[in-house]
Amino acid sequence: MSAICVSMPGSAKFAVQLAKALAASHASLDIHRFPDAETRIRLESNCSGKNVVIVDNGRDPNGNALPLYFATHAAKAMGASSVGLVTPYLPYMRQDAQFREGEAVSALAYARYLSACVDWIATVDPHLHRIQALEEIFEIPALCVTSMPSIAQWIGANVIRPIVIGPDSESGQWVKPVAHALGVPWATLEKQRTGDRQVAVSLPDAGILDGRSPVIVDDIASSGRTLAEAAMALRSLGSLPVTCVVVHALLDMAAEAELRAAGVAQLISTNTIEHCSNGIDIVPILAQQVRTVLQGTRGNA
Amino acid sequence: MSAICVSMPGSAKFAVQLAKALAASHASLDIHRFPDAETRIRLESNCSGKNVVIVDNGRDPNGNALPLYFATHAAKAMGASSVGLVTPYLPYMRQDAQFREGEAVSALAYARYLSACVDWIATVDPHLHRIQALEEIFEIPALCVTSMPSIAQWIGANVIRPIVIGPDSESGQWVKPVAHALGVPWATLEKQRTGDRQVAVSLPDAGILDGRSPVIVDDIASSGRTLAEAAMALRSLGSLPVTCVVVHALLDMAAEAELRAAGVAQLISTNTIEHCSNGIDIVPILAQQVRTVLQGTRGNA
Repeated sequence: MSAICVSMPGSAKFAVQLAKALAASHASLDIHRFPDAETRIRLESNCSGKNVVIVDNGRDPNGNALPLYFATHAAKAMGASSVGLVTPYLPYMRQDAQFREGEAVSALAYARYLSACVDWIATVDPHLHRIQALEEIFEIPALCVTSMPSIAQWIGANVIRPIVIGPDSESGQWVKPVAHALGVPWATLEKQRTGDRQVAVSLPDAGILDGRSPVIVDDIASSGRTLAEAAMALRSLGSLPVTCVVVHALLDMAAEAELRAAGVAQLISTNTIEHCSNGIDIVPILAQQVRTVLQGTRGNA
Repeated sequence: MSAICVSMPGSAKFAVQLAKALAASHASLDIHRFPDAETRIRLESNCSGKNVVIVDNGRDPNGNALPLYFATHAAKAMGASSVGLVTPYLPYMRQDAQFREGEAVSALAYARYLSACVDWIATVDPHLHRIQALEEIFEIPALCVTSMPSIAQWIGANVIRPIVIGPDSESGQWVKPVAHALGVPWATLEKQRTGDRQVAVSLPDAGILDGRSPVIVDDIASSGRTLAEAAMALRSLGSLPVTCVVVHALLDMAAEAELRAAGVAQLISTNTIEHCSNGIDIVPILAQQVRTVLQGTRGNA
């Protein structure tokens, strides 16, 4: 397969791993910033006749929007057979509805932007809530990989007598398959808003804990608030120490401190976003899917 | 005409003036930045059935790329008849060729991006060099307005016995029409590169100065280097104090200091980009062209 992985800023480590798994080469994207705020993009390897896989971790969607567009343009101009985007974390999916008149539904607009930019995308566990499948919003092939089997495997290997907990009712979609794979019980917490910034979180049937080690599973940890509230609710019921496992670790230092303060014993994440909590490698399952897409593209050999 | 001008960050003053000239309303774009670097865009006025004119001065093309895309999406979702972009300064036009293999020709890629984003654009004196007309690179109507008549008018009213000077051979396209409109002589300086960062600038026929006040006219002042070198070359020939007039004042404070040090007596610019040197108002001529475009759009009444 004649493929080349090109890493956007901040995604070099992931891109190198993906390239290795795909038996593809790796190239960095050279981005020069001019004093007037414009950027000049340069692909450092010849892409002629190759399937180009741009890797962008989705951490700076606004700053990377034009560089990504320019990189695609440069690859096509060099004669690339196809240009796809691997964005292990797909940004903007949480803005999936208009909450006030005049608001952009960013998930739709971002999907339209990416559809105009590349030939296909691949991602890991996108935040699907009001939008139920990426096909609803993308005009290009949009591949999803789920990290839940990998997460189940990690829990099985690292937590004794676990119970899988979803921090809110939406998280049922994550926790059920994980608990089933492990053959252990699961539950989701219930949230009740008691004020503008106050939320009461409760476990409908506290008896289910039954001396088990609670593992909260969620897709995104950002402010850390949801996980912290869930952990506090569990600890207030006298639970064993709480482990949190998330797919996408978007947290900053303040969020990590909040989790510690809430009594979270450990936080583990997949490596979709590089973070000190990374403990679950999703490159192999993502590479498998990317290989399938590339086999369907023109430039495949 | 049922039009509404929507200003991107940093372009409110220009957008308000344009709206006034178009007898249109004005709305700000509300941009909320989340801690995770995503943005939420909101149009604060109802755009249903209206021709939306987004105004962006082009000073932060990368940072504004997604917000602009999202704003267009929101306007269309609200039922806007058309969405155009007035970018008084059109960025990325100086990157009009590939200087090294693998480089993106940003002017082409940016034009493709804008073509996928809005229905039409309008700009003032784009930097056309290797690309000779915007039609070559835009897939949507792309209107150009020239500020040269306004610049000629300013010189005629403010400089006694002027001679119009182009800082390099490319600037002939600007200085000739200005000099013709004023009925005064003109000349362009010649540049010779004498080292990696050194350029010798000379006036082929020094006698043409003839006790006239030199007015250097150029399209963009960015680092200020070109203008500074031109001014120094003129002063070394014993010229009268030098005035510089530019269309787009992209300069920062360091560049302004460099111009002063080079003996530039005054710097005047059009108001395409808000700057303390603004002295020539191009809103009226731009508004005239925008009115023409809007009369051709579906939503016109």
